[in-house]
Amino acid sequence: MTKPIFIYLVLFFCLACAKKQTDTTEEPTQKEYSSTGGPTFGIVIHGGAGTILKKNMTDSLEAAYKEVLTKAIKTGHEILANGGSSLDAVRKTINVMEDSPLFNSGKGAVFTHEGKNELDASIMDGATLNAGAIAGVTTVKNPIDLAYEVMVNSEHVMLSGKGAEDFATRQGLEIVDPSYFYTKKRYRSLQRILEQEKTELDPDGGTAFVDPYIKDQKFGTVGCVALDKNGNLAAGTSTGGMTNKRWNRIGDSPIIGSGTYANNATCGVSSTGWGEYFIRGQVAHDISAQMEYAGKTLAQATHNVIQEKLTKMGGTGGVVSMDHDGNVSMEFNTEGMYRAHMDAQGKLTLGIYKENE
Amino acid sequence: MTKPIFIYLVLFFCLACAKKQTDTTEEPTQKEYSSTGGPTFGIVIHGGAGTILKKNMTDSLEAAYKEVLTKAIKTGHEILANGGSSLDAVRKTINVMEDSPLFNSGKGAVFTHEGKNELDASIMDGATLNAGAIAGVTTVKNPIDLAYEVMVNSEHVMLSGKGAEDFATRQGLEIVDPSYFYTKKRYRSLQRILEQEKTELDPDGGTAFVDPYIKDQKFGTVGCVALDKNGNLAAGTSTGGMTNKRWNRIGDSPIIGSGTYANNATCGVSSTGWGEYFIRGQVAHDISAQMEYAGKTLAQATHNVIQEKLTKMGGTGGVVSMDHDGNVSMEFNTEGMYRAHMDAQGKLTLGIYKENE
Repeated sequence: MTKPIFIYLVLFFCLACAKKQTDTTEEPTQKEYSSTGGPTFGIVIHGGAGTILKKNMTDSLEAAYKEVLTKAIKTGHEILANGGSSLDAVRKTINVMEDSPLFNSGKGAVFTHEGKNELDASIMDGATLNAGAIAGVTTVKNPIDLAYEVMVNSEHVMLSGKGAEDFATRQGLEIVDPSYFYTKKRYRSLQRILEQEKTELDPDGGTAFVDPYIKDQKFGTVGCVALDKNGNLAAGTSTGGMTNKRWNRIGDSPIIGSGTYANNATCGVSSTGWGEYFIRGQVAHDISAQMEYAGKTLAQATHNVIQEKLTKMGGTGGVVSMDHDGNVSMEFNTEGMYRAHMDAQGKLTLGIYKENE
Repeated sequence: MTKPIFIYLVLFFCLACAKKQTDTTEEPTQKEYSSTGGPTFGIVIHGGAGTILKKNMTDSLEAAYKEVLTKAIKTGHEILANGGSSLDAVRKTINVMEDSPLFNSGKGAVFTHEGKNELDASIMDGATLNAGAIAGVTTVKNPIDLAYEVMVNSEHVMLSGKGAEDFATRQGLEIVDPSYFYTKKRYRSLQRILEQEKTELDPDGGTAFVDPYIKDQKFGTVGCVALDKNGNLAAGTSTGGMTNKRWNRIGDSPIIGSGTYANNATCGVSSTGWGEYFIRGQVAHDISAQMEYAGKTLAQATHNVIQEKLTKMGGTGGVVSMDHDGNVSMEFNTEGMYRAHMDAQGKLTLGIYKENE
């Protein structure tokens, strides 16, 4: 009697193996996405990661952050609920955060070493693998819109500096005087770092972003990933970079595969953190690749890339990500990350510190 | 008697499955690299891909291309043979091609729409995953050297434009007047495309690089991958981009994971082709990811990425790549690619057209 049981056990193991093997070797395929009560959709956002600690936060400031995060995610969610595209949802959601001085993108962008605001952004369409990115613009009110224009109305993927601004004008985007991006708090952050540099040879945090609101080290950047009712994923990221950045430094936010990646076959990812490590670690594409080739779930892939590979390299930050079934991961190895998720039923999950509240 | 045989067959299948599963999920590990007669090493280069046809080439021009390719690869090979690092070999090899007007990098760079030469380059160290990249410089004689300086002497990975040039000056690199990059043949190519644009609404090849030497469409860029005796891989890429590029366009060459990638655990890759597709397809990192997670060989991974995925997207170009055991792949989906490989024994393989000569 033991033999037949043994055979069944062995057969079961074989089938499990065969399933695993299929997962890891097959080419990505487009799927139909649906859940009970209609096609699923969802949206997830971040507003930067860093040593964001409850003890350094006032109740009113916490409420202000949550208000903008909620307003932003509801904007995108409404678009998705009405059958709009994930690309539209990503853009309009990021616009809300770009227009707030609380986040390091658009209006709230940090200052470069020379006292300017240089903005980077990128967007990717998971359905077509088309992408748009811009780096180092100083006069475009909403950089994510320019990244979108590059994607859909140019034959290029990435434009930079003055040329990107000329293209923005040509596309009729809102151009502002560079002084639009001046905020007293961000400018003081730069001054503080410059003072620090005079007294320290290699000041710790010289490349980081000191959040003047909560007196904490933080990496800026806002980002969004959305899945629409047609099963299309999109991801976008927008940033002012790092306070005191020099030499027209380009971080990971406008780099496809590092700061932003989207592929209907796997997932969408938007990164925030110490950009140099996110480029070296190929963070956004590596998450997708682990799903595509190693058969990992989104949760497994983001955990491996952020908590193991990135951490081992010495990099800090996090990602928000969503797979083609609407599963979400908000993974970070810092003390906190401004983040929010809203599912198809409109259930909102907001978070700032390590533990969800 | 049939039952035991069945059990053995089933067990054998299980073991095969388990082996496969291990291959695809284990973390990459550093290996010791050696071959009979000492540690292996090698170097592989490209000088651009495109519709390079024998019928459009003269014997003397073919000889000229081969001469520079040979000089370049011998430069790097000598460094490696003497125990030098793969990073040094990559830099010095690319320098030779940058200094030749035959290739679209450094001296031979193509012209932008505005009649300027904007240079991009990147380099990556497979041992540390450190990387350096620069975009849009107009006064640095050897852009690959600036990418290297960014990697080793700045806290950033990517610098651009004027800022990158200031950093080059600070690091003592050779600065030239922008007129250094003027070559009559390249300038005529731009004029020809501009004329064409006046008569055609959407001129075919408006973004491509017309090789004035052989009257063919070609994507520029030079690149190199090397493996040194210590088992360290490095990759680098340098380009003038595409003739008639606009709006400070950045292609794939300075994008880590698209134009350049190196990782001792898998392979080194340098790309050349229609940059926008190489960014969207994450070409360099995807090859590495297929080796890391799907257990593919370098040949299988490069074939899949170039001949299947890139081709399906409509992208054209190629890569040179080398794995941690010194295996080489020079894969392209165009009519030709200037390329060369030299192994540890000094055996040289040169190629221009589809079939090796």
